[in-house]
Amino acid sequence: MKVFNFNAGPATLPAVVMERAQKEFCDYKGSGCGIMEHSHRHKLFDEVLAHANENVRTILNVPDTHSIVYIQGGASMQFAMIPMNLYVPGKKMQFADTGTWSSKALKEAQLFGECEVIASSKADKYTYIPDVKAMKPDADASFFHITSNNTIYGTQYQEFPEVECPLICDMSSDIMSRQFDMSKFAMVYAGAQKNLGPSGLALVVIRKDLAERTPANVPTMLRYSTYIDSDSLYNTPPTFGIYMLGLVTDWVLEQGGLSAIEAINNKKAAALYAGIDASDGYYSSPVKKDSRSRMNVVFRLPTEELEAKFVKESIAAGMIGLKGHRSAGGIRASIYNALPMEGIERLLDFMAEFKKNN
Amino acid sequence: MKVFNFNAGPATLPAVVMERAQKEFCDYKGSGCGIMEHSHRHKLFDEVLAHANENVRTILNVPDTHSIVYIQGGASMQFAMIPMNLYVPGKKMQFADTGTWSSKALKEAQLFGECEVIASSKADKYTYIPDVKAMKPDADASFFHITSNNTIYGTQYQEFPEVECPLICDMSSDIMSRQFDMSKFAMVYAGAQKNLGPSGLALVVIRKDLAERTPANVPTMLRYSTYIDSDSLYNTPPTFGIYMLGLVTDWVLEQGGLSAIEAINNKKAAALYAGIDASDGYYSSPVKKDSRSRMNVVFRLPTEELEAKFVKESIAAGMIGLKGHRSAGGIRASIYNALPMEGIERLLDFMAEFKKNN
Repeated sequence: MKVFNFNAGPATLPAVVMERAQKEFCDYKGSGCGIMEHSHRHKLFDEVLAHANENVRTILNVPDTHSIVYIQGGASMQFAMIPMNLYVPGKKMQFADTGTWSSKALKEAQLFGECEVIASSKADKYTYIPDVKAMKPDADASFFHITSNNTIYGTQYQEFPEVECPLICDMSSDIMSRQFDMSKFAMVYAGAQKNLGPSGLALVVIRKDLAERTPANVPTMLRYSTYIDSDSLYNTPPTFGIYMLGLVTDWVLEQGGLSAIEAINNKKAAALYAGIDASDGYYSSPVKKDSRSRMNVVFRLPTEELEAKFVKESIAAGMIGLKGHRSAGGIRASIYNALPMEGIERLLDFMAEFKKNN
Repeated sequence: MKVFNFNAGPATLPAVVMERAQKEFCDYKGSGCGIMEHSHRHKLFDEVLAHANENVRTILNVPDTHSIVYIQGGASMQFAMIPMNLYVPGKKMQFADTGTWSSKALKEAQLFGECEVIASSKADKYTYIPDVKAMKPDADASFFHITSNNTIYGTQYQEFPEVECPLICDMSSDIMSRQFDMSKFAMVYAGAQKNLGPSGLALVVIRKDLAERTPANVPTMLRYSTYIDSDSLYNTPPTFGIYMLGLVTDWVLEQGGLSAIEAINNKKAAALYAGIDASDGYYSSPVKKDSRSRMNVVFRLPTEELEAKFVKESIAAGMIGLKGHRSAGGIRASIYNALPMEGIERLLDFMAEFKKNN
């Protein structure tokens, strides 16, 4: 039986990508060894890197004002690098707090300078995204930081705020899942392990002029300019991860790019939420309807005992990763780009059957 | 024709490791998906991590006083983390400067406090390792930092200094290639992409009490305690890299551990240096005999033109990665653990043939 993988990250990757990587794992392009055994200065890897960059630029429509770089340490390292590089003394770092990861970004920034939360859904257990039209950061703020999709709570910005200061967005769990206007963002970043590839790198798209802010005392490996100036090759990058990101972005383009991917994702999420909403309250979403994530569908059952049973039986039915985050409980179906419609159908069938029997 | 890969890093990995990783790439232990698609909180990855830790502890004979952690960013990130975490104000950070990477470690430390170079071979173009018996760091230095093997210049410590202050060693290019006494080191670290696995992580073995020095203002992802306290699972680690490190260390154990690996490495290096020394000066090593590296064998030909021809023809003869580092020129044969004796024989045959014809 085919297994469907609903993990929140690391997560399922497109089957064709995994198969291709497997096929050429030990002998990349007839070179006699795998791409992970090649030097990062070799022309074979130059091509891999250039290809990944080109795909990202095309798919996300990245303007020439912005650089594309790959940095190790995931989004969590960005929580430190952002204030280290981009805080301007005397100008606040402002945040929207919409969940665990937003809070962590804020906490790291507080080590470096004055921070302010100007929008939050914390008091309501992060069950919605605050009104973006009411998000009014200072015009001269160092930056305004948001988290586009909240993996743990299953909420997602449906549209983005319009602000005067640099807008920075952690898109770890919904990058490349839908269309957006990159030119409105000073910086977008994402840990790769959901929609882009394996864990071990973050994709960072950053407006070049922003990187000039970095104070002189920031170490080389923590400066955005190091990555921009060297095309991510100052030291040995995570070469296999970048290679996988290249294959995954090839697949995104083969699907028809972001407009096609977005349409499929909308269809997948709509079907799953419809199943929840049609269950007469047996399944229930804690998330406000206007904030529902199309990537992480969080729902509850009548009791925690039933939830545990649901998770256990779902594994036997060929579905893994459905247990909610340990801090939130319940069920979480992460339905990233690579999770096919057949996986949603399997889950819906299982939910109907489980409800009937329990 | 089988290709032998003399890359300096990323580098050749054991063929049996690559084949096994390929075989289970899309379906790890019958789970229906690859290990890179599994959550880092899943029991399958728990086992991978525990297994890697156990192997490292066994092979390097790591005492209970030391923790084993995996940190993204390679050795270059350690150049920043070491002074950020381990500098004690008023107590110098002291260094032996034996090449490019030592110098880079020093440069980053200078951002954080007072540094001093107490041994150096810079004036002689880094062609040897200074006398370790003459290395006398302050008893109360914050630490003394050395680089056990210098990839670019082809030099290697044959023995290690005995010091009173914490001894920190960058072993990126010779870790697990020979026996040493871990208990004499406060910290040993190594980018994985030479003897341990793919690029994208550094192995760090650190004495636990050292991690208590970290000042309060160091960000979470840059604190050693974060990795120690969470067993490298504070955020998503580079799961596939840790998995590969587990397989590579399995292979090290299958070879008979460090004593067996060291004997093989000595034999490989001795054969290659003997070929150089027996060439009547056609091939010449710029490195002092008592400092020769058993991992990176650097040599010159009579002219740069011949060196370029040598590199070109070696590729046709099924050997890649023999070009010296751009900053040093010449030829560099990186003969890490996974490069088999047959590769050395191929190279020696080629060297003899090339000399005859040129």
